[in-house]
Amino acid sequence: MPNPTAAMLVIGDEILSGRTRDANAYHLAGELTRTGIDLREIRVVPDVHEVIVGALNALRGTYTHVFTSGGIGPTHDDITADAVAAAFGVGIDVRDDARAVLEASLAARGRTATPDQLRMARIPDGATLIVNELSGAPGFTIGNVHVMAGVPSIFVAMLAAVLPTLEAGAPRLSREVRFDVGESRIATPLRALAAELPDVSVGSYPFREGDLHGTNIVVRGTDPVRLDDAVARLEAIRAQVG
Amino acid sequence: MPNPTAAMLVIGDEILSGRTRDANAYHLAGELTRTGIDLREIRVVPDVHEVIVGALNALRGTYTHVFTSGGIGPTHDDITADAVAAAFGVGIDVRDDARAVLEASLAARGRTATPDQLRMARIPDGATLIVNELSGAPGFTIGNVHVMAGVPSIFVAMLAAVLPTLEAGAPRLSREVRFDVGESRIATPLRALAAELPDVSVGSYPFREGDLHGTNIVVRGTDPVRLDDAVARLEAIRAQVG
Repeated sequence: MPNPTAAMLVIGDEILSGRTRDANAYHLAGELTRTGIDLREIRVVPDVHEVIVGALNALRGTYTHVFTSGGIGPTHDDITADAVAAAFGVGIDVRDDARAVLEASLAARGRTATPDQLRMARIPDGATLIVNELSGAPGFTIGNVHVMAGVPSIFVAMLAAVLPTLEAGAPRLSREVRFDVGESRIATPLRALAAELPDVSVGSYPFREGDLHGTNIVVRGTDPVRLDDAVARLEAIRAQVG
Repeated sequence: MPNPTAAMLVIGDEILSGRTRDANAYHLAGELTRTGIDLREIRVVPDVHEVIVGALNALRGTYTHVFTSGGIGPTHDDITADAVAAAFGVGIDVRDDARAVLEASLAARGRTATPDQLRMARIPDGATLIVNELSGAPGFTIGNVHVMAGVPSIFVAMLAAVLPTLEAGAPRLSREVRFDVGESRIATPLRALAAELPDVSVGSYPFREGDLHGTNIVVRGTDPVRLDDAVARLEAIRAQVG
């Protein structure tokens, strides 16, 4: 059976302006690979309601899962929860369960919720909360869309809470073989290798170290025996090109 | 006049698998902000012909410019040039000008082109070469699509070659004000500020330093006087919340 598929939707002007280098998509990619869910697309969009709604509807109709990051805080630029509700055509309001989680977290620090903080308890109708220890403001899952925070430490905690609830596939394994020659020198045998092992994906990643032009070959697949075979063939190619 | 718009299309299984953390979109975002071209979307897609063609056609029809990275080397997984030709419905073959650039670069290292290396001189009909000093294999521009390498140092060199040829807009400026309080504490005055200054975008980015919950407020716009005004108002808010 093929693995479940996924897309990541990063909501953030700060990524598009170059202020911030995304960390959440990179973290998600590694976690999904280990879990056996195939990440097929990443999109970064600005904090614009109709753009978020359009991207959500395109992605949730195409992939098994959609993971979002960003835009669920208390300020005016936090518009993700409303966009998700609009995409699903459901209502959204402060919900008692989310409010309880938020108020318990604030109470532990001797505080009560301000009206702005209560905005973080606005949850689309029919969603399930993603509760985590780091943040009193919960994320949520609605349908196949998992809505999480943009702050990397909280994104990590929310993903750790939601991933075990999802059906896993066969973890995608990878092995890497380093060649101290440029990729042009090995392109022909690589092409033959890729054709002979259709269930193994063969990626070629050139690098430079000082004057050395080298190439890392990464083979990926779900069957460790096939990957061992691929690695043995790569080592035989390496022995030939010196 | 509004600024030109842009999208980035990153072609790379290695990003989606979590092996590599993207650097090119981050670099592009900063360069475009300085140039006055508004980056509106980033997409990462796998090395799959029809997916690349579909994304290219969606993006080139929506934005002033599309910048791509990855998939223009000599190996079997380098399929970007063919996908671009298919998206534009034009032919592709080894072209004399690209071949001359490639062979001159190889000759400088005492080499001649192998058939695999000649693949890197395959250029869609009607494209203009993006020549750079770091790589003998050129990128190219066709229509509003700029096709560049995935290796970050070469991507940087190619972008430096192509950016000065594009019509620039008003550079998007930003100023940042740090608050040593969580964003909930300042959400109400921030909302008022954002409403009063519609030509300034106001972003709120919470952070933690040990036990401190702080917030960086970033104001962005093209008019430095309006940004100075926004910063003065933010400092007045900061004086009030302590």
